Amino acid sequence: MTGIVLGIDLGGSKLALALGTSEGRVLARSRRPTEPSGDALRDIARIVESARALLAEAGTRAAELDVVGISVPGLADTASGRVLDPPNLPGWRDVPVAAELRAALGCPVRMENDANAAALAEWRFGAAVGCRNAVYLTMSTGVGAGIVLDGKLYRGQLGHAGELGHVPVEWGGERCACGQQGCLEAYVGGRSLTARLRESVPPPSLVAKLAGGREHVTPEHLLAAAREGDAFAMEELARFNHYLARGIVMLAFSLAPEVVVLGTIAAAAGEALCLGPVRERVRENVWPRIARAMRIESAALGEELPYRAALCAALEGELVEAAER
Amino acid sequence: MTGIVLGIDLGGSKLALALGTSEGRVLARSRRPTEPSGDALRDIARIVESARALLAEAGTRAAELDVVGISVPGLADTASGRVLDPPNLPGWRDVPVAAELRAALGCPVRMENDANAAALAEWRFGAAVGCRNAVYLTMSTGVGAGIVLDGKLYRGQLGHAGELGHVPVEWGGERCACGQQGCLEAYVGGRSLTARLRESVPPPSLVAKLAGGREHVTPEHLLAAAREGDAFAMEELARFNHYLARGIVMLAFSLAPEVVVLGTIAAAAGEALCLGPVRERVRENVWPRIARAMRIESAALGEELPYRAALCAALEGELVEAAER
Repeated sequence: MTGIVLGIDLGGSKLALALGTSEGRVLARSRRPTEPSGDALRDIARIVESARALLAEAGTRAAELDVVGISVPGLADTASGRVLDPPNLPGWRDVPVAAELRAALGCPVRMENDANAAALAEWRFGAAVGCRNAVYLTMSTGVGAGIVLDGKLYRGQLGHAGELGHVPVEWGGERCACGQQGCLEAYVGGRSLTARLRESVPPPSLVAKLAGGREHVTPEHLLAAAREGDAFAMEELARFNHYLARGIVMLAFSLAPEVVVLGTIAAAAGEALCLGPVRERVRENVWPRIARAMRIESAALGEELPYRAALCAALEGELVEAAER
Repeated sequence: MTGIVLGIDLGGSKLALALGTSEGRVLARSRRPTEPSGDALRDIARIVESARALLAEAGTRAAELDVVGISVPGLADTASGRVLDPPNLPGWRDVPVAAELRAALGCPVRMENDANAAALAEWRFGAAVGCRNAVYLTMSTGVGAGIVLDGKLYRGQLGHAGELGHVPVEWGGERCACGQQGCLEAYVGGRSLTARLRESVPPPSLVAKLAGGREHVTPEHLLAAAREGDAFAMEELARFNHYLARGIVMLAFSLAPEVVVLGTIAAAAGEALCLGPVRERVRENVWPRIARAMRIESAALGEELPYRAALCAALEGELVEAAER
């Protein structure tokens, strides 16, 4: 055991790699666009290339690694090391990524769902340090949750826990990419929000102007316009906060966590535009005794998150025992 | 250590006591109406009387007990052994019941919320035996949940987890006894259901006839009329199942338990009137992969439940360290 591990954070748009220690210190890192090719095996070969490049740069041999960890999007069968059907990786359907990595790099592989890996990172190194019960909400393209309970990651049956993006926040509401209606993700997920904005932004509005045309609008333009006090942007953000608060109300009554940590869009929006209003709405809809015991915080790791999440997948992800190609 | 424990299940209407072994075997039991007097200390004195009577009957001295456990309704501060504000025990507000029991019986006291104690009982001895992740839904006067995750009771921050009766199933919906709107309990709790039936049962209906007047209607009459195929009763039950399924959908996406165990009213209604229709509605609203991995079952302990729950409070409840009167 050398105490050196390699973590891989595989996202639909970005691939982040971190070489680190068993205490979670980052020794070397790299990042590039994922650029999925539509062929999972070709994508994995490119991931392995990136891993070898990072190892070479750090003067480390693959044989020195204790373990390789990979954080993967969407539902995964971590026992057999397979990615099942990630929404943002075309061609990745039931792919034995753990077995491929083990064959290429010659070391044990751990695997974790991306929301779980990010939750572990915020819990070990970020906004939830020292908390016994913490929920991390990813709020990027999709919405997922990583749940730490009694000081341990909770994965649920077959690793399915934490699909909080698909808890209904409006019964019979908007159609979600997953096929269900009224999911939290359909209201606060980056993909849904972007689609909605491109459709509904008034062409002469500040949001459209900042984006250089409504067809280029992203949630970032919404936040920038809201900071200028733009009425349309403020209204859209109020809607975002309203539904986000509904999701947190359900968490409060079911899990009563010590802290709910909000990622990406909410973190970018910050206190005045998101966290403050969300806290207020949650307080209005949760018993005072429970609300008082639960903090709602912004993610703290920022640009560090993918590297720390990658390391957490390597250090605390599920060890893939039955990896078969 | 004699391996002998005493468990007390304190409910708003019934008090059940069980003398048992550390393996959970019931050696002697007793049951009587709680008949709250409005004065908590007087009620506790009567509980102690009942305990002494059971011990005398079994030929056991209080000094021989390893521990006394009590299962209590509503929010409790188990660290200090206080019952906070149970909805069905008038006069019980911030009552140091653990300290009183310890003073009277001279042994350590463990304490558990009633939904947690019932969940432990169904998990150790009933419908959830052998399950790693199980949620038990009490469905009597109110609605609460006991949550076992990764083979351990999950209590949440300050013991507040599992208030599933107050997860909103209809945003802005019916007013709940707790003050919030649209809570699961406002639709499927025994108290709400009874109130609704007494108000809405058509006077000439079978439900009213079975009850001998609509002012006497209880959920049991609803079930009896539904078994006869009464249209009003079937419609009311469909509504009950509809909202119950919504609560379970949220559990599925957030916790992905292996089994959800339904108590009291659902258990009394049984397969055809409740469990079957609820399973179907849940399947329609949850991803197939998650729905397939989650069973929905009726509680298995029936009349045994209060005694087993009492013993579970004694065996696995929180040890009250700081009991002060």
